[in-house]
Amino acid sequence: MMHTIKPTSYNYLFSADLKPIAAVNPGDTVEIYTEDAYAGQLHSEKDLVSEACATTQFFNPQTGPIYINGAEPGDTLVVDFKSIEFTRPYAVTAIIKYFGGLQSTNATRMLQDSLPEKTWVWELTDDDKAIYNKALDIKLPVESFCGTMATAPKLESITAVAPGYFGGNMDVPDVCPGNRIYLPVNNEGALFYIGDCHARQGQGEVTGAALEIPAKCTLSFELIKGKAIEWPRVESRDKIMVIGSARPMEDAARIAYGSLVDWMVEDYGFDKLDAYMLIGQAGGLYVGNMVDSLYSLCASIEKKYLIHR
Amino acid sequence: MMHTIKPTSYNYLFSADLKPIAAVNPGDTVEIYTEDAYAGQLHSEKDLVSEACATTQFFNPQTGPIYINGAEPGDTLVVDFKSIEFTRPYAVTAIIKYFGGLQSTNATRMLQDSLPEKTWVWELTDDDKAIYNKALDIKLPVESFCGTMATAPKLESITAVAPGYFGGNMDVPDVCPGNRIYLPVNNEGALFYIGDCHARQGQGEVTGAALEIPAKCTLSFELIKGKAIEWPRVESRDKIMVIGSARPMEDAARIAYGSLVDWMVEDYGFDKLDAYMLIGQAGGLYVGNMVDSLYSLCASIEKKYLIHR
Amino acid sequence: MMHTIKPTSYNYLFSADLKPIAAVNPGDTVEIYTEDAYAGQLHSEKDLVSEACATTQFFNPQTGPIYINGAEPGDTLVVDFKSIEFTRPYAVTAIIKYFGGLQSTNATRMLQDSLPEKTWVWELTDDDKAIYNKALDIKLPVESFCGTMATAPKLESITAVAPGYFGGNMDVPDVCPGNRIYLPVNNEGALFYIGDCHARQGQGEVTGAALEIPAKCTLSFELIKGKAIEWPRVESRDKIMVIGSARPMEDAARIAYGSLVDWMVEDYGFDKLDAYMLIGQAGGLYVGNMVDSLYSLCASIEKKYLIHR
Amino acid sequence: MMHTIKPTSYNYLFSADLKPIAAVNPGDTVEIYTEDAYAGQLHSEKDLVSEACATTQFFNPQTGPIYINGAEPGDTLVVDFKSIEFTRPYAVTAIIKYFGGLQSTNATRMLQDSLPEKTWVWELTDDDKAIYNKALDIKLPVESFCGTMATAPKLESITAVAPGYFGGNMDVPDVCPGNRIYLPVNNEGALFYIGDCHARQGQGEVTGAALEIPAKCTLSFELIKGKAIEWPRVESRDKIMVIGSARPMEDAARIAYGSLVDWMVEDYGFDKLDAYMLIGQAGGLYVGNMVDSLYSLCASIEKKYLIHR
Repeated sequence: MMHTIKPTSYNYLFSADLKPIAAVNPGDTVEIYTEDAYAGQLHSEKDLVSEACATTQFFNPQTGPIYINGAEPGDTLVVDFKSIEFTRPYAVTAIIKYFGGLQSTNATRMLQDSLPEKTWVWELTDDDKAIYNKALDIKLPVESFCGTMATAPKLESITAVAPGYFGGNMDVPDVCPGNRIYLPVNNEGALFYIGDCHARQGQGEVTGAALEIPAKCTLSFELIKGKAIEWPRVESRDKIMVIGSARPMEDAARIAYGSLVDWMVEDYGFDKLDAYMLIGQAGGLYVGNMVDSLYSLCASIEKKYLIHR
Repeated sequence: MMHTIKPTSYNYLFSADLKPIAAVNPGDTVEIYTEDAYAGQLHSEKDLVSEACATTQFFNPQTGPIYINGAEPGDTLVVDFKSIEFTRPYAVTAIIKYFGGLQSTNATRMLQDSLPEKTWVWELTDDDKAIYNKALDIKLPVESFCGTMATAPKLESITAVAPGYFGGNMDVPDVCPGNRIYLPVNNEGALFYIGDCHARQGQGEVTGAALEIPAKCTLSFELIKGKAIEWPRVESRDKIMVIGSARPMEDAARIAYGSLVDWMVEDYGFDKLDAYMLIGQAGGLYVGNMVDSLYSLCASIEKKYLIHR
Repeated sequence: MMHTIKPTSYNYLFSADLKPIAAVNPGDTVEIYTEDAYAGQLHSEKDLVSEACATTQFFNPQTGPIYINGAEPGDTLVVDFKSIEFTRPYAVTAIIKYFGGLQSTNATRMLQDSLPEKTWVWELTDDDKAIYNKALDIKLPVESFCGTMATAPKLESITAVAPGYFGGNMDVPDVCPGNRIYLPVNNEGALFYIGDCHARQGQGEVTGAALEIPAKCTLSFELIKGKAIEWPRVESRDKIMVIGSARPMEDAARIAYGSLVDWMVEDYGFDKLDAYMLIGQAGGLYVGNMVDSLYSLCASIEKKYLIHR
Repeated sequence: MMHTIKPTSYNYLFSADLKPIAAVNPGDTVEIYTEDAYAGQLHSEKDLVSEACATTQFFNPQTGPIYINGAEPGDTLVVDFKSIEFTRPYAVTAIIKYFGGLQSTNATRMLQDSLPEKTWVWELTDDDKAIYNKALDIKLPVESFCGTMATAPKLESITAVAPGYFGGNMDVPDVCPGNRIYLPVNNEGALFYIGDCHARQGQGEVTGAALEIPAKCTLSFELIKGKAIEWPRVESRDKIMVIGSARPMEDAARIAYGSLVDWMVEDYGFDKLDAYMLIGQAGGLYVGNMVDSLYSLCASIEKKYLIHR
């Protein structure tokens, strides 16, 4: 069965208290329309965020929650991410006042003045396979993914700009078409959220914004019944990955690699110290975001080294 | 001209106070023998570090200092890293008490007991293109590099287990044959140190040890006169990179990306905000080490996006 | 007017979505009963948290929300904290698995085993002016305060174990009788929460638990209309203080001192750099908690140095 | 016996490689002259650091090393700190470019411009019991101490602006007359350094500078033979204290409290978990510096709670 979910309004929370906008069965194909992180309010290099977004209080509108029939706390939700199609011919990115990885913020408070605001527009080209900024005359390959994918947290209602154990605004490029994303089910129906599509992004998303663009995401869900996970996992053709989110950044790294050890022990039969040693020699560890309320790091290991023991 | 430097003893400091073991000219080819990080004291899975290394107080013996003729403070030393040949048919790796990324340490002090010590031996195979652990029956490709490459710091004498602005124990896999490494010259003669060869290593070196192996490294030096850099830089065929070392890890990321912005502004003519935005969309940022006295992160951008402006 | 608020059930969230349990006017005297952080489930040194608290999923039950008539977003709520009377003759404290400042946690993830659980009971004595542990034969002075005091956050619903800009589980001993606590009003009615009374606590609350005790707290509210603050403030007879909560700990320090500079500039007429310099010479900065989801630091300056300029 | 040590030049390193400027016996009274952190180059509010200190490359000149006869590695050096007399009628303090707790630095790298430089002069008054700034018309009580006190580190030579396990530039106000400071002996003769006298300082030294002043310090040494400590300890009439230095700040807190637990276990007979619990209820934890290369936190407990067990 095929669903098309095109919301007329968006949510700014990951919460079990919001009313589902759709209910789907595991195995159904679902097309979901998402808005960009600025709620579609930036269109030109003259649009500064402090002015163009002045009337919306929040960033990062989400499509959801989507109720997955049969999902219960303690299950794992698997998202089989099939494709992203952009619904606008250009992406935008911006420097916002007191936000980003190389200036002081409300969390890393300094007495210095903010960097100036600035906005850039990047136009899709080459059949949406590349994206071009005219002022800089730079063309980059499109490598699209969703900055945000979440299940509703347990108990709390969390702002859509935050990542966490429930997924959220992780800004990790491996949350992309072709990969399978595993999220913990914390509530009946899982209550899935998606948004914040990026035409591409550097590791760390250092300015605090990627190439932000609205899109149609196609995916389907599966449930692993009675199997709980603590942190979001990703599986590509070649690798298994865990995304840890925390501050300081080393704590995100510890969560990501520690949970990867768990996975290798539980599902691949490794001894804990052997798994630890092997990621020491063959693990991957890159920064997804260094700008959100928690930093997200993605730890990985290639499947070919994980013979079942 | 060709030099072969095969030390009879090693140093455990990066220091301008140590006597040079050789002097070479820019352009000379230099073969340098290095010892492994355990001073060659681990040979079997029965050798635990607390016992086998009990008589040596320190880790990570260095070959050096090597005096580069003509180098003066304010210059940049370029290391053209040509090759690594292993001088032993196996590498070793170990869990040490209260050391590593997923246990408490003397810096991240807890009241819990240490993980148990353990040592693994990995044998070179496939013409030194792969390395094999028998107990786990896992074979990994060799991707050798030097964990440590340094110039003597200014003023201070720093332990050989530390990374910093002078290079040092960065444990960044891109410090490898085929790449050019740029280090600041802080003293007359630059006073180059090298050691800590790894047959391979995961990003983060999470257990605190890679596949440690003695080697013969072949390289040559160049000087960029009158051009100072603040942090180590690496250039591959495709990318420019900066290595930042600090704690917490986000400060290492800030140094690495901040210095990459500097490089793009100085040498490629970018406006500062444009450079910042571009690394936000196209930068790479991975963890070299999350275990040493400072964490080392490697930031990069592909050269093809860096048209001179 | 006098109100007595004695709840029959407690909440585990700071949220604007929960129904107020009472409404009071500014100036009214309010007596509020609070439960201890373990929901009153620990009574003896045989009661380990993993067993005694097995049926309750959460910690730190709160009394609230209390609606303060006339409070609107953009105001500041002033809590005039008059007294604490204990409603049980003993306090309890415990080491919980994988929690606390000197062991690994779910945020600072390690592979080591947890410290063992342990519970201690401390009996009030000397007319509730001191508290005594028999096993250790140690008597400490009572210095009671509320670990938790909050207004509902904007948008989000946050777990009662977290501190933040809205107050929350700050675990700062200066939130005590005799002092005035200033909290931002983020919602109509302010929606005040209180709980987590401590008979006393060390700076840092290093084990993750203080001398936890149920109590009756007496206080009254005032409103400062049209005056917004960003972070909780405290005023004693002698000092003004700001509480910053963040990770890593230096970010909490930056928020606390940065907001103290703001206060000195806004209300005492200081030049920003002069205020900064003065706290460099005369500021106080202690750790409230080093165990909660964010660390809380309390920055202060004595009023006698703050002549209006 | 009485020694007077008045150096004609100063050192900018803590190092075992520097030649002792004096040798004294345990028990001798020693008067030591110290220079201020700016090498006496700031005298007026017109003197900006970037200009006035342009010819000296380094900050924080030290008097030392002083050789203590009989000290051997593995001993503890006890400094009985008797008095400070100022040798200049005024102190100076300054904001330096890209330095301090509330602006970006070379370690916490941002792209923002520096705060402006500024210098303040404070004049001693009231028989050196108070200090007065005319521009602000603020008088503060003198509470003098030494920002820096160290033994030479093992192996390394460390810049005099850094704190560490050997003491160094801790900037902790409890390193003051009336207290006893314990430092690890890492080399023959201990090799003691002292400097950086402060007429007073706020907790955190948030601008990066205290009220900097040259002085004559009077003290005597004792040795505890065969007793090694890992981190600097302080003993006042009422308290025992440990100073931990690390980044991020929570790691300094962990070292300080963890070492305090060690002390209570070793010298006062506490069970480890009981000691941990007790500091959770009665420990003190304040920030010494949040500006140096490592942050220094001071953990304490009152002696009256430490009955020998």
